[in-house]
Amino acid sequence: MAQYHQYCPVARASEILADRWTPLIVREMLAGSRHFNEIRRGLPGISRSLLVSRLRHLEDAGVVERRNSANFHEYLLTEAGSALRDVIEHLGAWGVKWAFGDPQEKELD
Amino acid sequence: MAQYHQYCPVARASEILADRWTPLIVREMLAGSRHFNEIRRGLPGISRSLLVSRLRHLEDAGVVERRNSANFHEYLLTEAGSALRDVIEHLGAWGVKWAFGDPQEKELD
Repeated sequence: MAQYHQYCPVARASEILADRWTPLIVREMLAGSRHFNEIRRGLPGISRSLLVSRLRHLEDAGVVERRNSANFHEYLLTEAGSALRDVIEHLGAWGVKWAFGDPQEKELD
Repeated sequence: MAQYHQYCPVARASEILADRWTPLIVREMLAGSRHFNEIRRGLPGISRSLLVSRLRHLEDAGVVERRNSANFHEYLLTEAGSALRDVIEHLGAWGVKWAFGDPQEKELD
């Protein structure tokens, strides 16, 4: 598995991006840098420890950069992270059209 | 979390698609239907039980359809599944450009 994910771009991108929270975490930063607590407030249900671990994973992958100041950690997307806008928009467009069941079935209700 | 993922299209799409294997499994079927063993051969490293579980998850989500014949299970994408081509292509394009480290760093080697 390691080798496959090392050389295939879709596999490597999936390894970086693909869990249920990661696209949402990236989306929180598309409009600019965010404090940890701002990101967390935008994602109802995520635990502090999961968000810490996902942000660290995204830092390691070069998608997110952390800036420390006296009172808080601030997170922002790198150039690679900002380039994910396209992927997230397509994911959302697919979600709108397909992820809530068959609209024809709904019409028949 | 349940409620958030129930109403946000990016969240719901992430819930369906987002693990390291799922985009690769969908990609195996973009060119047409595949037997279980064909899909497995295309994904070196995936275990039989994980592939079974991911395919079942994709069936439940309306992305994959299973057809049974005497000797094998055949899997194909539904219309919703075929519509994921766009998402996977954007994921791959991002991967080519960004998922293998900084190309400028490589040039300096």
